[in-house]
Amino acid sequence: MSQKEETKMEKIISLSKRRGFVYQGSEIYGGLGGTWDYGPLGVALKNNIKDLWRKKFVSSRTDMYEVDAAILMNSKVWEASGHVAGFSDPLVECGKCHHRFRTDQLEDTKKCPDCGGNLGESRQFNMMFETQIGAMEDSSATVYLRPETAQGVFVNFKNVVDSFHPKLPFGIAQIGKAFRNEITPRDFIFRVREFEQMEIEYFIRPEDWEKYFIYFKDVVTEFVEELGLDMNLVHEIEIGDGDRAHYSKRTIDFEFEYPFGQKELFGLAYRGSFDLDNHKLEYIDEEMKEKIVPHVIEPSMGVDRMLLALLLSAYKEDLPAQSGEQNNETRSYLAFKPNVAPVICAVSPLVKNKPELVDQARIVYGMLKAEFGRVMWDDNGNIGKRYRRQDEIGTPWCVVVDYDTLTDECVTIRDRDTGVQERIKKSEIIDYIKEKLA
Amino acid sequence: MSQKEETKMEKIISLSKRRGFVYQGSEIYGGLGGTWDYGPLGVALKNNIKDLWRKKFVSSRTDMYEVDAAILMNSKVWEASGHVAGFSDPLVECGKCHHRFRTDQLEDTKKCPDCGGNLGESRQFNMMFETQIGAMEDSSATVYLRPETAQGVFVNFKNVVDSFHPKLPFGIAQIGKAFRNEITPRDFIFRVREFEQMEIEYFIRPEDWEKYFIYFKDVVTEFVEELGLDMNLVHEIEIGDGDRAHYSKRTIDFEFEYPFGQKELFGLAYRGSFDLDNHKLEYIDEEMKEKIVPHVIEPSMGVDRMLLALLLSAYKEDLPAQSGEQNNETRSYLAFKPNVAPVICAVSPLVKNKPELVDQARIVYGMLKAEFGRVMWDDNGNIGKRYRRQDEIGTPWCVVVDYDTLTDECVTIRDRDTGVQERIKKSEIIDYIKEKLA
Repeated sequence: MSQKEETKMEKIISLSKRRGFVYQGSEIYGGLGGTWDYGPLGVALKNNIKDLWRKKFVSSRTDMYEVDAAILMNSKVWEASGHVAGFSDPLVECGKCHHRFRTDQLEDTKKCPDCGGNLGESRQFNMMFETQIGAMEDSSATVYLRPETAQGVFVNFKNVVDSFHPKLPFGIAQIGKAFRNEITPRDFIFRVREFEQMEIEYFIRPEDWEKYFIYFKDVVTEFVEELGLDMNLVHEIEIGDGDRAHYSKRTIDFEFEYPFGQKELFGLAYRGSFDLDNHKLEYIDEEMKEKIVPHVIEPSMGVDRMLLALLLSAYKEDLPAQSGEQNNETRSYLAFKPNVAPVICAVSPLVKNKPELVDQARIVYGMLKAEFGRVMWDDNGNIGKRYRRQDEIGTPWCVVVDYDTLTDECVTIRDRDTGVQERIKKSEIIDYIKEKLA
Repeated sequence: MSQKEETKMEKIISLSKRRGFVYQGSEIYGGLGGTWDYGPLGVALKNNIKDLWRKKFVSSRTDMYEVDAAILMNSKVWEASGHVAGFSDPLVECGKCHHRFRTDQLEDTKKCPDCGGNLGESRQFNMMFETQIGAMEDSSATVYLRPETAQGVFVNFKNVVDSFHPKLPFGIAQIGKAFRNEITPRDFIFRVREFEQMEIEYFIRPEDWEKYFIYFKDVVTEFVEELGLDMNLVHEIEIGDGDRAHYSKRTIDFEFEYPFGQKELFGLAYRGSFDLDNHKLEYIDEEMKEKIVPHVIEPSMGVDRMLLALLLSAYKEDLPAQSGEQNNETRSYLAFKPNVAPVICAVSPLVKNKPELVDQARIVYGMLKAEFGRVMWDDNGNIGKRYRRQDEIGTPWCVVVDYDTLTDECVTIRDRDTGVQERIKKSEIIDYIKEKLA
């Protein structure tokens, strides 16, 4: 990581904590490695990402069924899927300080990066969190926190088919948490032990796989572009023959240029009939009177990684001369698309000690809040400070009620990206914003 | 549970599985006690409950901050909160078959209800799920799946105050999963091991507690009424002096008459300064220049229990004569309020082998789907069967395109509860439904 990139990550992490996007998990007790808590702005941003995904991939479509499976699953699921035997990372331990590391992440596999001691033999470490369920203490009660959401979909394949009788092709979607006991969590919310996934398992006739693979490649790319991801930082990595899972004829990792390196952001995999075969599931086509095992195309996305990529894509700094305002400081802002921004608009009276301005601003605030929900009241400090504060959290518009409002019924609406201020009628603000949101 | 009530629970459980509300967790592997998976209609119903809660308690208000804390928390949190020492149920084991039971749920604490063997001494069993985090094997890495969402709020109290500088009173809200290792999970999605909570911790000046307790009692009651809960089945149980937690001056359990008994559905507790004291947290009032430890009012609700109570409230059966239609069978339907119903409206052509009807119906469907999202295409079987099928999942309106539509531009819209059918202009359906939703 270069000096400049390191600085950018530090700025994002600091901004996230200071303004209430993301806090360290269990922070007041010294934290807990690989866990993070979302603050109010992070919750809003995450909900926007999830809602837009659900709208695009589920509720606007006729071929998608959303499920929400339990995190705790019968361990037989993970035996069938191969996770009990094979979901592991190579781990190595220092003979001196006993710290452990992922072998594949070490530059030197002989010497401990913490104390310089000798590292032992590499061994496999299963990444599933294990717990005991029920009051019995025998081993049959061992269960795992799901390490992926996909199996929660496959085990409900028959249920969905029985309830809805969908015709091929159709998809089952799920948004939910998954857990991996990473040996060395790192890079903020990128490599964590608890995370959220948005996944679709799309069931098709085997001969159609190439068509639907291309289709989802396009529609998923379209989605992240609509979210406002900087597409110059996204790279399609075609996984080669030797590196794909044995059952996959094609897999693409979409990597993002994070400051800490180019790493996976979302993926698209052709999984063949691997999963339905593992669970001994099949599909009966009632019209064709035939039994088949559908094949699967899986577009998969991490909510937390997407949120981080959006923060990084949106983060901008203006030199004083570019900011469109009289100020000597560098202006930093998050250029979120309005439908993604945690706060759509902030409202304030020009000064907070004039009751007539405050009353008018409260009315405008109430009106916008009722319409858009994600609206903030912000009357602290002078107007320049408020703009800077809203810029920093990516609020596209600031509305200010001033003395003129009392006579001309107009307010000032100021654009985050250009700094340009317009006067518009109070009665027209909602339509003005709605039009920009469309 | 009476014969009739048992029958009602059986009907609800069967309907839930058959139509895709709730499936047994890990069902194809024999299930996993106390876990349930939500199917497409259950996901929609649950999302509606959560969205309406968020709208009422968070996004329409200026005093609420929503967080989303990790499920895995540092175990010091649970030491401070008292859960490590005290979050346990009394458990008893049969000396013969070794089955275990919750002592307080047994009618006879001497004889095993399964085999009649002798039960042993009652002992305390901690209900928190325990797991090991990180690759270290020493005991410092033991963590728990959170048994409640509340502590995820308290440990972020300082973060939210530092980011947003809220003035008292203010609340921190959270929707999220929690886990309890119930000895004997039962009663469908009522007593489960994995569940979802919607909670607010509302921070107030100590002297204001009675005012805000009453305020939240009213607003929470208003909310469940708006959801469409049968208020005749809801009972306010004032918890007496001896039964409340030692730190609480007042607690109300709101119980619902489930078929298996009157049991807690949601609650309201005055928690004093117990939690902030435990975590050594305080609040600085900058205007008054004083340090105080705010007190807490906690309105708390289980999403799964609410969903079950709504299914039970909404379930109705009509005798043939009452259903407004020519049919000899009893009609069963879910009388959900339209804003809660998983599907707002279903669209179909009168018959599915007439392309001109199908085309028209597709246009109407597309229009309604774009506007409302939760719209279903349903052209299977005759029209009477489709109505019955939509009634059973609680769809308020069915729209049918018939031969007259081709000339008069009108469709038939049929009301779930009354069976009454109206003809209205295609161009007016959206407004017609919008008006009913308002």
